[in-house]
Amino acid sequence: MDPDPELTPARAARLAAREGRLGSTRGVALGYLQCNLVILRRPLAYHFLLYCQRNQKACPVLEVTDDGDPEPRSLAPGADLRTDLPRYSVYRNGKHTEDREEILDLWEKDSVAFLIGSGITFDEALQRAGVPTDKHRWVLTTNIPTQPAGPFHGNLVVTMRWLTPAQAIIATQVSARFPFNHGAPVHIGDPGAIGANLDQPLFGDPVNGIPGHLVPVFWACGVTPQAVAEASGVDFMITHAPAHGFVSDLHANDVCLP
Amino acid sequence: MDPDPELTPARAARLAAREGRLGSTRGVALGYLQCNLVILRRPLAYHFLLYCQRNQKACPVLEVTDDGDPEPRSLAPGADLRTDLPRYSVYRNGKHTEDREEILDLWEKDSVAFLIGSGITFDEALQRAGVPTDKHRWVLTTNIPTQPAGPFHGNLVVTMRWLTPAQAIIATQVSARFPFNHGAPVHIGDPGAIGANLDQPLFGDPVNGIPGHLVPVFWACGVTPQAVAEASGVDFMITHAPAHGFVSDLHANDVCLP
Repeated sequence: MDPDPELTPARAARLAAREGRLGSTRGVALGYLQCNLVILRRPLAYHFLLYCQRNQKACPVLEVTDDGDPEPRSLAPGADLRTDLPRYSVYRNGKHTEDREEILDLWEKDSVAFLIGSGITFDEALQRAGVPTDKHRWVLTTNIPTQPAGPFHGNLVVTMRWLTPAQAIIATQVSARFPFNHGAPVHIGDPGAIGANLDQPLFGDPVNGIPGHLVPVFWACGVTPQAVAEASGVDFMITHAPAHGFVSDLHANDVCLP
Repeated sequence: MDPDPELTPARAARLAAREGRLGSTRGVALGYLQCNLVILRRPLAYHFLLYCQRNQKACPVLEVTDDGDPEPRSLAPGADLRTDLPRYSVYRNGKHTEDREEILDLWEKDSVAFLIGSGITFDEALQRAGVPTDKHRWVLTTNIPTQPAGPFHGNLVVTMRWLTPAQAIIATQVSARFPFNHGAPVHIGDPGAIGANLDQPLFGDPVNGIPGHLVPVFWACGVTPQAVAEASGVDFMITHAPAHGFVSDLHANDVCLP
């Protein structure tokens, strides 16, 4: 049977997520806009949207759904944000209590979903420019405070990649063209200068075995809202699980600078 | 007496506005970031911020103040948004009821101010590129609907400039570097294609006397929130009066792309 022409790589990824057949979205549907997810109930939505406005490097908002509507009508009409990510993380009173494959029973009449650009979006552009995206990357906390809004506060979380100097320069130029996906790096070089804790990466193996000719490059990371949920003791928040994002129907080119 | 070195052109403009000595901010403190203003009470703030997120060409938000705080702590620490614009427009139940030189007695404990990038910001860059900014410009309604959010809806308002073809090309390139100040044009050429009503400009003299070799170029306009206040029948909104904006301490270069 011929493959379904309507089943774009993005739709195929969402269908696989819905059916429990998908793990991390890193490397999946390359070249499509990927988004991180934050779901809150309406009373917290204003301050979270304000928090995003004040911290656009970490939280570039691409769509906010209407109260109780799980469909991202702008980025992927017909999709369902309660089922179409491969994994969700649930935070209660500032603690990560569980991961879920769907959140149908946690969705409320006043739930609001925030879709936030993910750095995975420019992986394909990096690869085309000769920058590898599959190794030497970690997620780390820093001592850089974000701008608070209402109850939301916390330090910036970063994605650190170790690259050759030439790759670091190319990666800076390429990522700068994606301001809605964290854009250019926030730091390069000494991890200690931003308090990046190499001993305790939030995700990934311990930071070691790195060739001496590589330099660390740091991007604002879409895991920041999870750190904020913990720091702020938010009573209830659902997010994507790290590197398990939402694959939208838009192409990366639709959200990058010329 | 020597001029006060602390009195930058931006501060001088705000002081003049505070003391009732300033008219339009067009051409004032050239090269500084200028902002349009919307003030609402807190119950409407979420949907307006969401409206701005959904309509970033018309409403690029640069700062939102905390509840009841009239100081724009990010864009101009020490300034007072209740006095430091030369003129304010007040809307009640969707009608423009009055203009004011200050709004001290209209400011409430839950007032929230939205500072939105203004196209005046790139006037200096246009001038340096040889594009005149002082003539052949009008503000017009269109038939382009904006994306609604909660009670906020209405059609896009545009600034129309008539330029030579060469100037139109340059102006497109220059303004595209200012995405937080409406960015690139939304249309060029036939006004009828976007329902621009030349017979009834919102501001400016009737549209006539235009040399035949000029073409109209249309930018999303910061007057859009005023049209939205009217279309949506918002119970209470204060805005800048058109072309009477807030002069911030930031330079245009601080908010433009490289």
